[in-house]
Amino acid sequence: MSGSELESLEKVLESHLPEPELREVKRLLFGKRKLDFPACAVDAASERDFELKAYRFEAAQEQLRPPRRIRVGLIQHRIVLPTDAPVLDQVNAMHNRIGEMVEVAAMCGVNVVCFQETWMPFAFCTREKEPWTEFAESAEEGNTTRFQLAKKYNMVVISPILERDELHNTLWNTAVVISNSGNVLGKSRKNHIPRIGDFNESTYYMEGDTGHKVFQTQFGKIAVNICYGRHHPLNWFMYSLNGAEIIFNPSATVGALEPMWPIEARNAAIANHCFTCAINRVGTEHFKSEFTSGDGQKHHDFGLFYGSSYVAAPDGNRTPGLSRTSDGLLVVEMDLNLNRQISDKWSFKMTGRYAEYAEELAKAIRHDFKPNI
Amino acid sequence: MSGSELESLEKVLESHLPEPELREVKRLLFGKRKLDFPACAVDAASERDFELKAYRFEAAQEQLRPPRRIRVGLIQHRIVLPTDAPVLDQVNAMHNRIGEMVEVAAMCGVNVVCFQETWMPFAFCTREKEPWTEFAESAEEGNTTRFQLAKKYNMVVISPILERDELHNTLWNTAVVISNSGNVLGKSRKNHIPRIGDFNESTYYMEGDTGHKVFQTQFGKIAVNICYGRHHPLNWFMYSLNGAEIIFNPSATVGALEPMWPIEARNAAIANHCFTCAINRVGTEHFKSEFTSGDGQKHHDFGLFYGSSYVAAPDGNRTPGLSRTSDGLLVVEMDLNLNRQISDKWSFKMTGRYAEYAEELAKAIRHDFKPNI
Repeated sequence: MSGSELESLEKVLESHLPEPELREVKRLLFGKRKLDFPACAVDAASERDFELKAYRFEAAQEQLRPPRRIRVGLIQHRIVLPTDAPVLDQVNAMHNRIGEMVEVAAMCGVNVVCFQETWMPFAFCTREKEPWTEFAESAEEGNTTRFQLAKKYNMVVISPILERDELHNTLWNTAVVISNSGNVLGKSRKNHIPRIGDFNESTYYMEGDTGHKVFQTQFGKIAVNICYGRHHPLNWFMYSLNGAEIIFNPSATVGALEPMWPIEARNAAIANHCFTCAINRVGTEHFKSEFTSGDGQKHHDFGLFYGSSYVAAPDGNRTPGLSRTSDGLLVVEMDLNLNRQISDKWSFKMTGRYAEYAEELAKAIRHDFKPNI
Repeated sequence: MSGSELESLEKVLESHLPEPELREVKRLLFGKRKLDFPACAVDAASERDFELKAYRFEAAQEQLRPPRRIRVGLIQHRIVLPTDAPVLDQVNAMHNRIGEMVEVAAMCGVNVVCFQETWMPFAFCTREKEPWTEFAESAEEGNTTRFQLAKKYNMVVISPILERDELHNTLWNTAVVISNSGNVLGKSRKNHIPRIGDFNESTYYMEGDTGHKVFQTQFGKIAVNICYGRHHPLNWFMYSLNGAEIIFNPSATVGALEPMWPIEARNAAIANHCFTCAINRVGTEHFKSEFTSGDGQKHHDFGLFYGSSYVAAPDGNRTPGLSRTSDGLLVVEMDLNLNRQISDKWSFKMTGRYAEYAEELAKAIRHDFKPNI
């Protein structure tokens, strides 16, 4: 094992397992995904010091619908400057880094790119308001979202930010969706806010009020389920009921939750007959002031963001994850026709009995609910 | 690879990966489960030619509640006689087999045992009514459920059967729950019925009408989500809202669904802060008459039931699976206090916003629903 952190599960397996065991283990872990497509722009990625991986999910040829093949790009990265550098320097450094990664995504023909949760150190553990709230920006006019990448590269950009809502004088954790024309299509706020250990983000912002918006883009109908919302099956489900073909899950997650990471977004793809894209940041972020956590200890960081971004398909197949330790771009070509094909085949929506659940849930939420024991 | 089928994922990893990679890969795949507890009754299992595995999930010591440690047993097995043997012989042979496996479970101190879905060949693919409907029995008075194991071994028995409801002149796919006193506690019918390829079980029985019943036993509150219901997150969720501490998922599943098997029950344990037990049958079942399937082909079997029964805990940890190819008993000791501890820590229920979902779902099920696009 090189260094103290495993680079990725797949690399370990590939180094040690003989064929045909490796093939069978990969099938059990990832399903029968199609072969990698000829990797694009490998040199550019390598020069810029990030990992580039590319996979493809195919669908059956239909008679009446042409294939709807699109390419998504998932970007994971560490913060660029130390967390005590001037705010504007930090922001600019991150913009430069994302800029050079998105350029490579463009070389790979990516149509929809999604970044990790918030363009800033994930400093909510500190409980400090300054300087972190200075990273907040308007969804419609902010620095990050004005980012001209979308138009330049004809790419839908999903940009998760810390949003400052001047009108209501509040902050939100928000994903801004920018169409490939460069216009803001809209925004989707984080629906579920963690209150766990280092992560009581409600010190800064509350549960989102934008519901389960789905964005019609030139490349399909997309939705954004931010971070902690991945633990809530109803959240994925409701995006899907509103028509989402791809649900992005920009996240910031560490430590004990790592064994759950491969499970939840993938389960959502299966249960909802859609694609899901799970994106985590990378690296350990150090904060100058010591802070306390739910474990009774004092910290200057909250551990390794373990990367491992991946895409899951409606048939249960998934890509391997990006590295646990380094910046990376995951390019995935998918034929969106697969969603309906799998839905027609497995019929989880048809057999879902939602009318019964709507009734049961309405009863179950009442304070005087009597469980069926 | 010995033979044409991999015995289990874990065995391959253990044969080829060096420490410390193995330790880290196991953490990523299964989480940090506690060590095996001293295996009981290994000789008895080996004499009777089935695999015996045992694991433990611990919880933190609390000040006001004593630990609530119980042991569950999951039994997976192939059918014993060929499917064209006389029905009564098949039934008796299966009773004998289960009898000798449950005896070993008793030696291991199991408090709650659950068998796989239906005491019969999984013949619904044939579309033949005879002789398969002869396997059906009353939930309250049937042969299987009269099985005296529960009282003999002071064990709660979950016995999934093909139920004949004489009163309504219908068949159901039903789990009978027998208390450790030997009395029938009640029954739970399969809530979601597949209509996929070989598996249109609605030729035989329809969606269950027993809702999301939870059974209070001496060893905790348990529920049974039968087979295809594992694809429906709302189904798990509603058992949990009704108080289930352990949800059993007796199943019969093959082929392309194998990569999904480790995902769905485990996701349900995570999302609902409870234990889940996934049980699949083993082996390939051959039927005399050729039948057609959703793939346009003719068959005499529908492939390998891949076993791999496992238990998942609310903290996202899971046991490795039983073998893919042989009969087995999985014994798991769990401290049920872990459910509330994890719920208090991660708070998915508290942050679930169920009132909003009840409203949204009620709207979404209407035929004239306008999605939020």
